[in-house]
Amino acid sequence: MSTRTAYSRALDLKNGVVEMSHGGGGRAMAQLIDQLFADAFANDILAQGNDQASISMPQGRMVVSTDSFVISPLFFPGGNIGNLAVHGTVNDVALSGGTPLYLTAGFILEEGFPLKDLKTIVESMAHAANEAGVQIVTGDTKVVERGHGDGVYINTTGIGVVADGINISGERAKPGDKILINGFIGDHGVAIMSLREGLGFESTIQSDCASLNGLIADMVKAAPDIHVMRDPTRGGLAATLNELAQQSGVGMELVEDQVPMRDEVRGACEILGLDPLYVANEGKLLAICTEEDADKLLTAMRAHPLGKDAAIIGTVVEDKNSFVQLKTGFGGSRIVDWIAGEQLPRIC
Amino acid sequence: MSTRTAYSRALDLKNGVVEMSHGGGGRAMAQLIDQLFADAFANDILAQGNDQASISMPQGRMVVSTDSFVISPLFFPGGNIGNLAVHGTVNDVALSGGTPLYLTAGFILEEGFPLKDLKTIVESMAHAANEAGVQIVTGDTKVVERGHGDGVYINTTGIGVVADGINISGERAKPGDKILINGFIGDHGVAIMSLREGLGFESTIQSDCASLNGLIADMVKAAPDIHVMRDPTRGGLAATLNELAQQSGVGMELVEDQVPMRDEVRGACEILGLDPLYVANEGKLLAICTEEDADKLLTAMRAHPLGKDAAIIGTVVEDKNSFVQLKTGFGGSRIVDWIAGEQLPRIC
Repeated sequence: MSTRTAYSRALDLKNGVVEMSHGGGGRAMAQLIDQLFADAFANDILAQGNDQASISMPQGRMVVSTDSFVISPLFFPGGNIGNLAVHGTVNDVALSGGTPLYLTAGFILEEGFPLKDLKTIVESMAHAANEAGVQIVTGDTKVVERGHGDGVYINTTGIGVVADGINISGERAKPGDKILINGFIGDHGVAIMSLREGLGFESTIQSDCASLNGLIADMVKAAPDIHVMRDPTRGGLAATLNELAQQSGVGMELVEDQVPMRDEVRGACEILGLDPLYVANEGKLLAICTEEDADKLLTAMRAHPLGKDAAIIGTVVEDKNSFVQLKTGFGGSRIVDWIAGEQLPRIC
Repeated sequence: MSTRTAYSRALDLKNGVVEMSHGGGGRAMAQLIDQLFADAFANDILAQGNDQASISMPQGRMVVSTDSFVISPLFFPGGNIGNLAVHGTVNDVALSGGTPLYLTAGFILEEGFPLKDLKTIVESMAHAANEAGVQIVTGDTKVVERGHGDGVYINTTGIGVVADGINISGERAKPGDKILINGFIGDHGVAIMSLREGLGFESTIQSDCASLNGLIADMVKAAPDIHVMRDPTRGGLAATLNELAQQSGVGMELVEDQVPMRDEVRGACEILGLDPLYVANEGKLLAICTEEDADKLLTAMRAHPLGKDAAIIGTVVEDKNSFVQLKTGFGGSRIVDWIAGEQLPRIC
């Protein structure tokens, strides 16, 4: 993403739309980059103006994560595709126990998309990046014809560092370990589905999308030997716990009553026919640690605004089948399987 | 991109198509990742199976570049969107004078896309990455409904290191410097446009898409003080030289007779109504260096298979207007302006 100052005819950010020429490598593309992206994302590295960013890295292992965002609709209660694209990748980097430092941003724009909406999205990204303490250091813009996109798709790739001695990874869950979550499940997915279905819940249920790196830093400080962290996004708690059970070769036992859930989300899920365990979250993390560490980790989580409703929701058990089981309120138990298919398309 | 081994029902790679469930975070997505991506891209870092890759970096500055690829058609003479997505980002990293090491890969798949075509694309990526000596260390897959994509879009983000003392950057062109290119211009754009227009040139004109990091390493060894390198992709030679003229605050004088161009490309451009100076390349680089370095750089370029048709094509001049001028064969001169709009949509 070069920042070019020539040919400064102003973009019509009020009534203009994305045109094929904005992806052509010529003057129109330079204007879009200069007047919209470079302005919003301004930093010294981006201002290098080359096709690649040159950056210095502190000591430690490097962590990298990438995500493409195709959420529909683009704007939703609690966020939009822009800040979601920052939060999501910041979280994936931070969940290694590391510090996210840099983001790249790749845009696939659909011809005809209003520039004023693009500006809102880009400014949300910039705001989210500032809040999370990361810099957007390089980017790319492509434009596709009407009918070959859906307004805006965004890829973000995040780079960070992990201090030596921190070793948080999906295969480290051990029988006896405790499973923690930082708050209510299902808010993101229900906010999006309510909006799509026109249910009118959107006034009360907001997406939980947030950058969790601050919370994670506090958690790692309190309990440096956290075994596993992962965010239950697509496929919700169920998919993420099944992934981790597989990766660690263990079973998981969840206690239904302990899983934090808002009444509105429970109600909306009933109406929408959704199982909240499978509903996506965008500001939640699962942490797995020894029983000894669990209480101090919970205390650290509850001391942070994004962890105030944190809870211990289950235990890692021996199970050669790697099943995830839910102990229900009535003393029963059921297997929480992977979903075979797609419950909520384009949720992130 | 987690690699998951459970639920190993085989994907139907012969007759199957992308389904919405392949993006849902459940079993179908796990199968797609496991049986298609993880197989093709296999390496120890990807096999960590977390949402982020943990990697060690050699000493030096880090360089990062990102690009989304939306080329249409997906398959073309000389390549496809898969190896193009590797070549393009490998080149953007290498053009800093650095060594590309790692790639991330983000896929946006359209519902209904044949899995066998996706397999071909993914295997091309893997092959191109192997040849270029880079590892695909983490990835992401999203699926959008029919009519909201165009088969496959791919984002790649590249990470590399630059040795201390190498300082190649777009603002370093100085009056008196020489401008070099590593071979024939216009092959990529003309190959694509011929295919789109059904002109039947595709049998003779192939895309030049290639990873240039080997060539670049030889060039940096021969002339460590190269001032500028950049690849003339979208917008061609004209757009890239105008960008660099702006960034360095200089003018550029090209000599038309010195710019390497195939007769077939010249002929196709006449029929298609294209100016070859504006046509995209995907295996070409421009280098700018002192007059003293120019001959040894040219020699080093010509000694590499991807530089055997290299030439010195012009000179950097003082010009407060930052114009790019072309000296024509008849002794005249014309200004090579930025294109205002889009000459060749979705060329990369």
